[in-house]
Amino acid sequence: YKLTFSGSRFAPLVVLELASDTKEEAIAWLLSRIRDWQQNGGAELLVEQLGPGIGVEEKENPNMFLVGASMQRLLCGAEDLGLFKECTDGSMRAFTFASKHNFKDFKGDGDGFLSMAECQYVIKHELDTLRAKEETNVPGYSHAKLYPGKSIIRRLLSKGILIQMFPLHENEELKRLSFSWYKKVKVSLQPLDDIRHYYGEGQALYFGFLEYFTFALVPMALIGVPYYLFDWEDYDKYVVFAVFNLIWCTVILELWKRRSASLAYYWGTLCRKKAFEEPRPGFHGVLGHNPVTGRAEPIYPTSKRHLRVYLVSLPFVLLCLYLSLYIMMIYFQMEGWALSIYDENPTFWTHILLFIPSIIYAVVIEAMNLIYRYAAEFLTEWENHRLESSYQNHLVLKVLVFNFFNCFASLFYIAFVMQDMELLRQSLATLLITSQILNQFMEAFLPYWLQRRRNKKMIRKIQKRRLYEEKELPLVEQVRLEADMSTYLGTFDDYLELFLLFGYVSLFSCVFPLAAVLVVLNNITEVYSDAFKMCRVFKRPFADPAANIGVWQLAFEAMSVIAVVTNCALIGMSPQVRSYFPESETQLILCTVAAEHVLLGFKFILTFLIQDVPKHIQDKLARLEFESLEALKKKVSTSTL
Amino acid sequence: YKLTFSGSRFAPLVVLELASDTKEEAIAWLLSRIRDWQQNGGAELLVEQLGPGIGVEEKENPNMFLVGASMQRLLCGAEDLGLFKECTDGSMRAFTFASKHNFKDFKGDGDGFLSMAECQYVIKHELDTLRAKEETNVPGYSHAKLYPGKSIIRRLLSKGILIQMFPLHENEELKRLSFSWYKKVKVSLQPLDDIRHYYGEGQALYFGFLEYFTFALVPMALIGVPYYLFDWEDYDKYVVFAVFNLIWCTVILELWKRRSASLAYYWGTLCRKKAFEEPRPGFHGVLGHNPVTGRAEPIYPTSKRHLRVYLVSLPFVLLCLYLSLYIMMIYFQMEGWALSIYDENPTFWTHILLFIPSIIYAVVIEAMNLIYRYAAEFLTEWENHRLESSYQNHLVLKVLVFNFFNCFASLFYIAFVMQDMELLRQSLATLLITSQILNQFMEAFLPYWLQRRRNKKMIRKIQKRRLYEEKELPLVEQVRLEADMSTYLGTFDDYLELFLLFGYVSLFSCVFPLAAVLVVLNNITEVYSDAFKMCRVFKRPFADPAANIGVWQLAFEAMSVIAVVTNCALIGMSPQVRSYFPESETQLILCTVAAEHVLLGFKFILTFLIQDVPKHIQDKLARLEFESLEALKKKVSTSTL
Repeated sequence: YKLTFSGSRFAPLVVLELASDTKEEAIAWLLSRIRDWQQNGGAELLVEQLGPGIGVEEKENPNMFLVGASMQRLLCGAEDLGLFKECTDGSMRAFTFASKHNFKDFKGDGDGFLSMAECQYVIKHELDTLRAKEETNVPGYSHAKLYPGKSIIRRLLSKGILIQMFPLHENEELKRLSFSWYKKVKVSLQPLDDIRHYYGEGQALYFGFLEYFTFALVPMALIGVPYYLFDWEDYDKYVVFAVFNLIWCTVILELWKRRSASLAYYWGTLCRKKAFEEPRPGFHGVLGHNPVTGRAEPIYPTSKRHLRVYLVSLPFVLLCLYLSLYIMMIYFQMEGWALSIYDENPTFWTHILLFIPSIIYAVVIEAMNLIYRYAAEFLTEWENHRLESSYQNHLVLKVLVFNFFNCFASLFYIAFVMQDMELLRQSLATLLITSQILNQFMEAFLPYWLQRRRNKKMIRKIQKRRLYEEKELPLVEQVRLEADMSTYLGTFDDYLELFLLFGYVSLFSCVFPLAAVLVVLNNITEVYSDAFKMCRVFKRPFADPAANIGVWQLAFEAMSVIAVVTNCALIGMSPQVRSYFPESETQLILCTVAAEHVLLGFKFILTFLIQDVPKHIQDKLARLEFESLEALKKKVSTSTL
Repeated sequence: YKLTFSGSRFAPLVVLELASDTKEEAIAWLLSRIRDWQQNGGAELLVEQLGPGIGVEEKENPNMFLVGASMQRLLCGAEDLGLFKECTDGSMRAFTFASKHNFKDFKGDGDGFLSMAECQYVIKHELDTLRAKEETNVPGYSHAKLYPGKSIIRRLLSKGILIQMFPLHENEELKRLSFSWYKKVKVSLQPLDDIRHYYGEGQALYFGFLEYFTFALVPMALIGVPYYLFDWEDYDKYVVFAVFNLIWCTVILELWKRRSASLAYYWGTLCRKKAFEEPRPGFHGVLGHNPVTGRAEPIYPTSKRHLRVYLVSLPFVLLCLYLSLYIMMIYFQMEGWALSIYDENPTFWTHILLFIPSIIYAVVIEAMNLIYRYAAEFLTEWENHRLESSYQNHLVLKVLVFNFFNCFASLFYIAFVMQDMELLRQSLATLLITSQILNQFMEAFLPYWLQRRRNKKMIRKIQKRRLYEEKELPLVEQVRLEADMSTYLGTFDDYLELFLLFGYVSLFSCVFPLAAVLVVLNNITEVYSDAFKMCRVFKRPFADPAANIGVWQLAFEAMSVIAVVTNCALIGMSPQVRSYFPESETQLILCTVAAEHVLLGFKFILTFLIQDVPKHIQDKLARLEFESLEALKKKVSTSTL
């Protein structure tokens, strides 16, 4: 551990920031619970209050606490969590303290065996599972009710007593990571293992997917460039490209599953058994007993939640979709109207008028997206999901559907109702280029700039950091600096952006072959801006031991099904195919539909045939399973004898 | 145990029949291996030679052996297998000998705790996993190679030294079961728990599915009767029925998954961990080491198998499908030709000529089915699958596709190419009625009759049994009697029949509403004939601890997708819908296709929304998982302290 804490005897890992007006008795109680032995129901962690900064400022929050733990405690925590580590024989096994010397990187007393991200995850887990015993409320706060088994940290969070809990950055390692990641001009791949080491598996999988997706697009971009340059429009461009699209998007997603399984296996998350998931902080209900654990916890009837989902949220989403469709129709009407004015009287001012509908539409869509996002969050919160994962899935689904609709409805309308391929190409190009520039700007540079501007103190501190550039920044300053950084809200928006890009390419790239090229360029800059924002703009996030990209895999697969249908329709509408059926449109449609069904069937068979987990990893997983069964049998037979 | 064995001290459970010319040294070696202690690598079972019958016949095979085990041995075997049993608190848990008194039905020394089917399954498992040690071949048979770890029984079977291994019937219980199952005239459900108790979970799930499917058809049959009786043809019959079909077949299959999960949970197979699957007896390859177990076993490269599957089997199946299509086209030509002759010259002889094509077609189809079945078995054997399950899946798939094609191609042709609904109705009725009568006859009564006729000795024995009716049949006679009975080949043909019936109903019942009624009638008689054949015609099969209906669930789901497409097409072709689009056929087709896509999407969402396992069983499974994790944690923490 590079970090050293002046007044203390342990390496600080996680910061707890309590509200500055927190009552003394609550603080004392919390600290004693954190420090207490595990036998007494405590977390057995080390915790110290953060001292004042060098130049003591006005209004600094005194209630910042640094949490750490002894190496032994961290290793036991890792065992509790069932973390998988590489053994000396190259296989991945659940770490146990008793068998610690079988593990590859375990040396001495285990220093450096767990990455800092893993240690922080262990501490987070220990704090999260610190449960109330006989307390009926947080001392000094009669409204912050507790009951036996309730997670203390979650109650403090939901009552606003605990402002935030975040892991500390490790400056040395961050400097090394950011150098190999985005500062170095290079043609190599991203340092995924280092990213995983520093940020955890969830983040690394996102960057892995981004990289994979970019490479997957290269063949398409390579075909697209000559198509565009030599203007091969008169050839069977549509058909070749559409068929390529079809196969591409199926195969790509299947192969990603395999790659993701490989990565997750070597990162040890593929076969880690998930611990029983606790209710999310915001979940409320009547106090009862969990049927699985038997612990006291709030119970909220599933039927009530279903009613809320199906009778309120679903109609609301449908209404929003309808509204969005309605606004789109108005936009097309306005555009037609502007065009007719321009045609009648083509002056400079009427030419400018041509752009007005698009601008208004773009602004309205942005505003709707924003409002909808808040509404979706509110509704999903109100649906009162017990699990964080279920909350996330419902939120993702809501936002996804609306965004998909907003981005693609107008393109579908142009393609299939107006059947204007020229306009489609133009819209697609505009959308891709503007979204690329805007996103990159909004996502990384704006927050960075805002953060720098936010207050003078901040700037001064950053300048101070500059002064200390080569030396170590004092820990106290570093903690306060990081506490003020924005919180990284997860990979949601990053995946959403990729999802929309995937949509543009898989749905319509046969009409605009340069789409793949633009997306490749976008992804390359995206890697840099995302890396920059992770390293410089945001607080370090807690590691998330994900085994796959979760609900996004499903979303991408749904998109690939829509892509098959869309591409078949585009093929059916292409002049080349139409010319084969000069006499009968009915026959053309029937043939297209038949081909589409065959392709969809083929796609499902392909999905089925390509195994999700590569054979050598399947073997390793089976071996693990086999060994545990054998061990059980041996244990059983020795106990009977 | 009701069975008593005159000369021995144990209840015989399983019979091993060796070839009558088996060398003495091989027999002695096998018996010693079966009787040897487990520590020495034996099976620790009891085994005795069967004595000669009462009236000693010529040519009786002397090499029949009865295998049994002590109660303690059986209980340990059940623990090895990880059998799940009900605890005193109502939950299902893996049986362990140490915690035997926590289980509900465990009394005294455990007599009656395991059903006879379970005991027989334990013995089968112990015999199957009896492995060679240092032997390089079966004594006396230099060509029957062995290597350390090879299953002895499988080698004996594959070399023809072991003719068969089968479990014994239990006459008392069989009498009781058959009375409550099919002899009693009743309106009650089938005694599924008793069936499971006697035949095991695989059989019981089949009968459960048959029953479920029959009940699921009742609403459809109820709607079908008035439609047929009052000739509501002119109303929107098609549409209502087709829409009903659509929803019905999706919901039915989803609900079956839930029911199947419930049954499997209470039968203890849902959460039983499958032991590592051994290679099937016929599997061959170069001797190597299994990457999972590390044991010596034949290795056959997967790539070679893939080549065989994709380059030989797949083209062969496609060729057969093409051939079947070709023959169908000839049939329709012949029929047109016969019709034209009849129209020209309508006499008695030309009227008879009308039936000739159908008869020829039916015979050719039957012959093709038979030949194809053999070819499929040969090819699947040749593909050299390592696992029995993989062999079964490939065989089922091959046979399924061909049967589907044979049964439905002509109906699809009539419906969509000829568009002759009258003929479709007629063909469907003919198919359903003849297949019902033929199947029932071929399946149960013909084998029964054949068996009775097979040889005089048999009849005499059955008459002898009649004489003994009230008394116990001597065990020696019973064993020889059962050894001569036909072997039950599994539920394959029964499921195939149900699958085709499901196809008739889900695809075309909107054209012929009585189909559901006929299928319900068929299923009711099917229950009786299947029950009869299980109890009277066949040897008792070994129990098969299945947790679901396996590949058939997939097959039925595929059929339900095809049903959605077919029903949409039928709706699109119905005069009622056509009349909405008088001017444009294109629009009609586009609307139909759009509706179909929406319905397919809806179907998938529905499949996704209806959870496969009911909530209360999910909770119980989660509780089990949670407990085992907690136990592990406790074990770990005590071992560290």
